[in-house]
Amino acid sequence: MPSEFDIIRRYFTRPVKRALLGVGDDCALIAPEPGTVLAVSTDMLVEGRHFLAGADAAKLGHKALAVNLSDLAAMGAAPRYASLALALPEADETWLAQFTQGFFTLAGVFGVELIGGDTTRGPRNIAITVIGAVPPELALRRDGAKVGDEVWLSGCTGDAALALAHLNARVRLSDAALAHCLARLHAPVPCVALGLALRGLASSAIDVSDGLVADVGHIAERSGVSVELCFADVPRSRALAACADERLAQECLLAGGDDYELAFTAAPDSRARVAALAAESGLALTRIGSVSAGEPGLVSVYDASGKIMHIASKGFDHFGG
Amino acid sequence: MPSEFDIIRRYFTRPVKRALLGVGDDCALIAPEPGTVLAVSTDMLVEGRHFLAGADAAKLGHKALAVNLSDLAAMGAAPRYASLALALPEADETWLAQFTQGFFTLAGVFGVELIGGDTTRGPRNIAITVIGAVPPELALRRDGAKVGDEVWLSGCTGDAALALAHLNARVRLSDAALAHCLARLHAPVPCVALGLALRGLASSAIDVSDGLVADVGHIAERSGVSVELCFADVPRSRALAACADERLAQECLLAGGDDYELAFTAAPDSRARVAALAAESGLALTRIGSVSAGEPGLVSVYDASGKIMHIASKGFDHFGG
Repeated sequence: MPSEFDIIRRYFTRPVKRALLGVGDDCALIAPEPGTVLAVSTDMLVEGRHFLAGADAAKLGHKALAVNLSDLAAMGAAPRYASLALALPEADETWLAQFTQGFFTLAGVFGVELIGGDTTRGPRNIAITVIGAVPPELALRRDGAKVGDEVWLSGCTGDAALALAHLNARVRLSDAALAHCLARLHAPVPCVALGLALRGLASSAIDVSDGLVADVGHIAERSGVSVELCFADVPRSRALAACADERLAQECLLAGGDDYELAFTAAPDSRARVAALAAESGLALTRIGSVSAGEPGLVSVYDASGKIMHIASKGFDHFGG
Repeated sequence: MPSEFDIIRRYFTRPVKRALLGVGDDCALIAPEPGTVLAVSTDMLVEGRHFLAGADAAKLGHKALAVNLSDLAAMGAAPRYASLALALPEADETWLAQFTQGFFTLAGVFGVELIGGDTTRGPRNIAITVIGAVPPELALRRDGAKVGDEVWLSGCTGDAALALAHLNARVRLSDAALAHCLARLHAPVPCVALGLALRGLASSAIDVSDGLVADVGHIAERSGVSVELCFADVPRSRALAACADERLAQECLLAGGDDYELAFTAAPDSRARVAALAAESGLALTRIGSVSAGEPGLVSVYDASGKIMHIASKGFDHFGG
């Protein structure tokens, strides 16, 4: 049985290039970058809550880092460092090898250095803190949406929730649709490049992790504005477009969660710049609503006939019923 | 039942003074301080492993932050920020109120701002990442011990382990000794001021969390040196001095863990400065050994007659037997 220190050496210690000091001391040391501040975010994934017992370890290593990088993306921050706290029921080296393979592969894509953490025995739990760099005046905060701004969404929401609906036998997807939706659920790709491109363009941004309406609601609340979304404009993936259960489709699109797309606001006169960004980057960026001076924090969704829709679920709440 | 967002608002959101942006966005934003780098450390505490089910929540809030601040102390870093990821079996508001009272009271003592985190449902687990500031050339790294240096220890080791031994009925402490040892176990005070005072004085430092011999061993390993400790010089608290079971006393002193004292090395010609620091600060700083050019990473403990001692346990290993 490898010791805690064997595990740290074997699986978690990689040479750092940017950090002054990485894994192996009481603390890591990181140097500031001129003109930037540090963006810091923490996400915890718990077995039985965020992933099932027996989940693919490599995908888990990927996803645990991806959901954290998604927060940096939503801030317009360039990923730099990660710290990983890991509780494991046992020192399973096969699991560790796969988990770290998934983690470090994604870390490599975005130039993230693992600078520290903790490993301990306990119910499986993965807590990651990521640190990125952003010029303070360009950070994409939630509180910058202005009345008259337009609301945009990258990609599509709902695919991860549709995969869960299939796994829970609420719907039966085609093999192709299932493969697509499972990839969205288990291997989300954080919108890092988009976040960087939105610096100076978006007035506010958030990553969609709890559900589109809930997360846009966070922007509305922090910005002290109201948001109107046009349901017909909310884009659908091929899998969701093929879903015959419109009630389920609506739930997935508006309240699904686990999407890791970016929702953002931008001034109407930035519309051409957003369109140009979409064209250059190959990303789908869709205008789905607008910001108004209504009740602060309120998000209203309108159907094609202009009638206000009742949203069944407002998104994911870890202590909700 | 409060929602996840109610909980964050009610218990975890405090105004920040130093951070540019605290709890409530995708990321916190923190500004660099001229002349310093950031020291980053993460520790995770798991129910059933680091604390028992039903443990006093206020003490747990204190301890979870204290063990993290101890890592900053061992780096000579001034505490600045903390991020807290918390998994809880249920949204128990009494527990949350007590936990955050313990956490924020200690945070207030050391000027630490809570800048973010995550709350989720799951087996109780507390993962904290702390961030401090230190001029890079003054950071107390583990790899700076030089042959000829002397080894020093703040305070005494073993009291927390002695408390556990009492709770496990291996020893019966007097009421006064038990109260002292339980306080050491449940409410450790990180040696922050000492860490700052050791800047430019200690050649290396570590906080004693796994056990004295194991942690001094980390300095020896990282510095590529050997360490000789003189057991008779290892200081004993009144509680340990009164322990009739010498074998248990030895185990507590050398391998107990959970002490959160600092072990450090300093050049022999710094002896007067260390003594002066002890006198000024009122801290006990005891010379317990020396650094030699022996086998890198080796720690040998000698008894009063100069014979090498066999150490029963090398300290705590979360995946050890």
